[in-house]
Amino acid sequence: MRLSQTFTKTTKSAPADEQANNAKLLIQAGFIHKEMAGVYAFLPLGLKVIENIKQIVREEMNNIGGSELIMTNLQRQELWEKTNRWDDEVVDIWFKTELKNGSKIGLAWTHEEPITDMMKNYISSYRDLPVNVYQFQNKLRNELRAKSGIMRGREFIMKDLYSYSRSEEEHQKIYKAITDAYMRIYDRVGLGEITYVTRASGGAFAKYSDEFQTITDAGEDIIYLDKENKIAINEEVYNEQALDELGLKKDGYEKVKAAEVGNIFHLGTEKSEKLGLSFTDEDGQEKPIVMGSYGLGINRLMGVIAEHFSDDKGLVWPKSVAPAIVYLASVGQSEAVKNQADKLYDDLLESGISVIYDDRDTRPGQKFADAELMGIPHRVVVSDKTLESNSFELKSRTSDDTKLVSQEELVKTLENKS
Amino acid sequence: MRLSQTFTKTTKSAPADEQANNAKLLIQAGFIHKEMAGVYAFLPLGLKVIENIKQIVREEMNNIGGSELIMTNLQRQELWEKTNRWDDEVVDIWFKTELKNGSKIGLAWTHEEPITDMMKNYISSYRDLPVNVYQFQNKLRNELRAKSGIMRGREFIMKDLYSYSRSEEEHQKIYKAITDAYMRIYDRVGLGEITYVTRASGGAFAKYSDEFQTITDAGEDIIYLDKENKIAINEEVYNEQALDELGLKKDGYEKVKAAEVGNIFHLGTEKSEKLGLSFTDEDGQEKPIVMGSYGLGINRLMGVIAEHFSDDKGLVWPKSVAPAIVYLASVGQSEAVKNQADKLYDDLLESGISVIYDDRDTRPGQKFADAELMGIPHRVVVSDKTLESNSFELKSRTSDDTKLVSQEELVKTLENKS
Repeated sequence: MRLSQTFTKTTKSAPADEQANNAKLLIQAGFIHKEMAGVYAFLPLGLKVIENIKQIVREEMNNIGGSELIMTNLQRQELWEKTNRWDDEVVDIWFKTELKNGSKIGLAWTHEEPITDMMKNYISSYRDLPVNVYQFQNKLRNELRAKSGIMRGREFIMKDLYSYSRSEEEHQKIYKAITDAYMRIYDRVGLGEITYVTRASGGAFAKYSDEFQTITDAGEDIIYLDKENKIAINEEVYNEQALDELGLKKDGYEKVKAAEVGNIFHLGTEKSEKLGLSFTDEDGQEKPIVMGSYGLGINRLMGVIAEHFSDDKGLVWPKSVAPAIVYLASVGQSEAVKNQADKLYDDLLESGISVIYDDRDTRPGQKFADAELMGIPHRVVVSDKTLESNSFELKSRTSDDTKLVSQEELVKTLENKS
Repeated sequence: MRLSQTFTKTTKSAPADEQANNAKLLIQAGFIHKEMAGVYAFLPLGLKVIENIKQIVREEMNNIGGSELIMTNLQRQELWEKTNRWDDEVVDIWFKTELKNGSKIGLAWTHEEPITDMMKNYISSYRDLPVNVYQFQNKLRNELRAKSGIMRGREFIMKDLYSYSRSEEEHQKIYKAITDAYMRIYDRVGLGEITYVTRASGGAFAKYSDEFQTITDAGEDIIYLDKENKIAINEEVYNEQALDELGLKKDGYEKVKAAEVGNIFHLGTEKSEKLGLSFTDEDGQEKPIVMGSYGLGINRLMGVIAEHFSDDKGLVWPKSVAPAIVYLASVGQSEAVKNQADKLYDDLLESGISVIYDDRDTRPGQKFADAELMGIPHRVVVSDKTLESNSFELKSRTSDDTKLVSQEELVKTLENKS
């Protein structure tokens, strides 16, 4: 993209009412716009990061046999009554509205009930199982407080996967496969080293569950960590009885702040029984289906990445999710510089390299500051000086060193994925 | 995708409460699921069609300089009060809900107000203009009746673009460019020949507007058509005075049913003035901004394509939007057939050809019927017979003729885009 034709602008200051570092940086860099507390629009650069994260998650979900679909935001009251989750006293984050005829409808905060009800059309025999389906859905949750920027939104994109299995054993296999897939996702977005499978409370269906926690001061959770042995326990189950039941040692944990970047739940057969989803097994017997649900907040993950990969100059995106690989800045207004930069822009796009081209009539200092604020992994400068040496000036976002390189070397560096 | 691992199934009958042909076919073929009237989930095959249509629209919007972003579903009451569109008496399709603190919020049925308000952060000078932004947004509209399947939903994906121009002249240029882009979109999805730019009433901002109407008996509109001269007029403005004002002849029109597949509006400076968006021109004067808005319902377009391209056997997707290019069916349960079909499946995917692989243990008649119901452009059969001749049986969805071809010929045919 050419910045001369891009409507967003960077700003020096963040809105006064914005408390979260991730949202401050993303607003200053022109990636997001705050519509209201916990409700953010994603501008062209921000949308690219979202799509990059979604694509990584999609690849990993397809890889373990997930089928992508998209459920509806409007939901039927009757389904949620069957599982006793319609009442605002039971679920306190519902947004609700109503149809013209006065019947109430819910706005999607999760999808266990509608997806399970729908599966009655498709699952009846053991031959139809197992089934793993997922979606990227715009969830709406009426959070009382929403002060963590895009890390906890009233509106956000969630990847939610639902698994339907014939037996506890089959369920455990997919549960394990999804745990591994989640860890690959965190690795790919650069958070693998500081993200832990963490034991937590299980909610309505099981005493304990697993969640994925990334160490960050911006997190809302406290976890107890044994880094060496990769053991992590959420504060909510960090007590003697729980540690006993989980078969974990009693001490040697470090207390750290963390953000939940994914959760996975065993749902057992409770939902499928309440909603009437069953299957006929090979022996002719009707049996309930074992379910699991697996959430991963896309906006939240982007927020945690923004918090972790940033410095006093701005964002520092890992290549795998960056809105572009290179920030190309033309310095000086000579026709020769302009032509050379235009040509390089076209050549890079042709090589399949994503480029933010700063072709604005702006002073170099502004261009360099914007390149850093936006956190683009590489910066390339075309100037009268580089023209003279028939080379380009290349700098990494994470280093202050610049070097002059040939176009061939440049393309080779930028094509390198890591 | 392998059908043995796909949870959706085709069914012989559509739900009794479904009146629209597009939804009946799409439900029977396993593309969509009806959650409630006008609210449909998109299953893996249906989602692929949606994404194919979105990609065509995206390319054409980028091509005329549009920047993609995504606004929020939750909207602030105060913005809509400024333009007098909050009241249910004025806009009768609002869904509304409320935050914990009791303040009311609207659910997105369109985005002129929030986008225009946001632009105050980015537009202040003539140098910042023009701006063209678009999104694919999940719109919610509280329709009293929703009986046209996915052609008129209470929840649907809309591509909406908003243009901000310095002058009426600049606005007319982008308006014309978008009109042309829309026609390219209809051409690419196969509806070009039966889609017309149609004069219609203009709503609050202009006496007349343009919309795009596709001839179909499933449509809810009546238009008057002069096919030869490509003139079309919506019934709502088909009267002597309007024809006069539009400079159109008085007779020689054919009356046909049609479905609106896109609309484009001149908004003038009314919205930008009410919401306080202005710019400083080169002469230092503060001026209001000329706006346009341009809608294209993705689900509706898919519904119209489904209505138009179907026969008594099912759907007949054009290649450009089909969920896969080829339906590969293995016939017979011999190991040799299975191996050959598996190998062809891998080879086709490697060549970048999208395949639905019917590897189910089902009788051939069922496989052939499903291939036709799903409307996949080509069908390839691997059987003992084809093995003997070292070839594959190829059939087009629109012909009853089959022919035996080599793998090389097969790939060549399938790679052909038209």
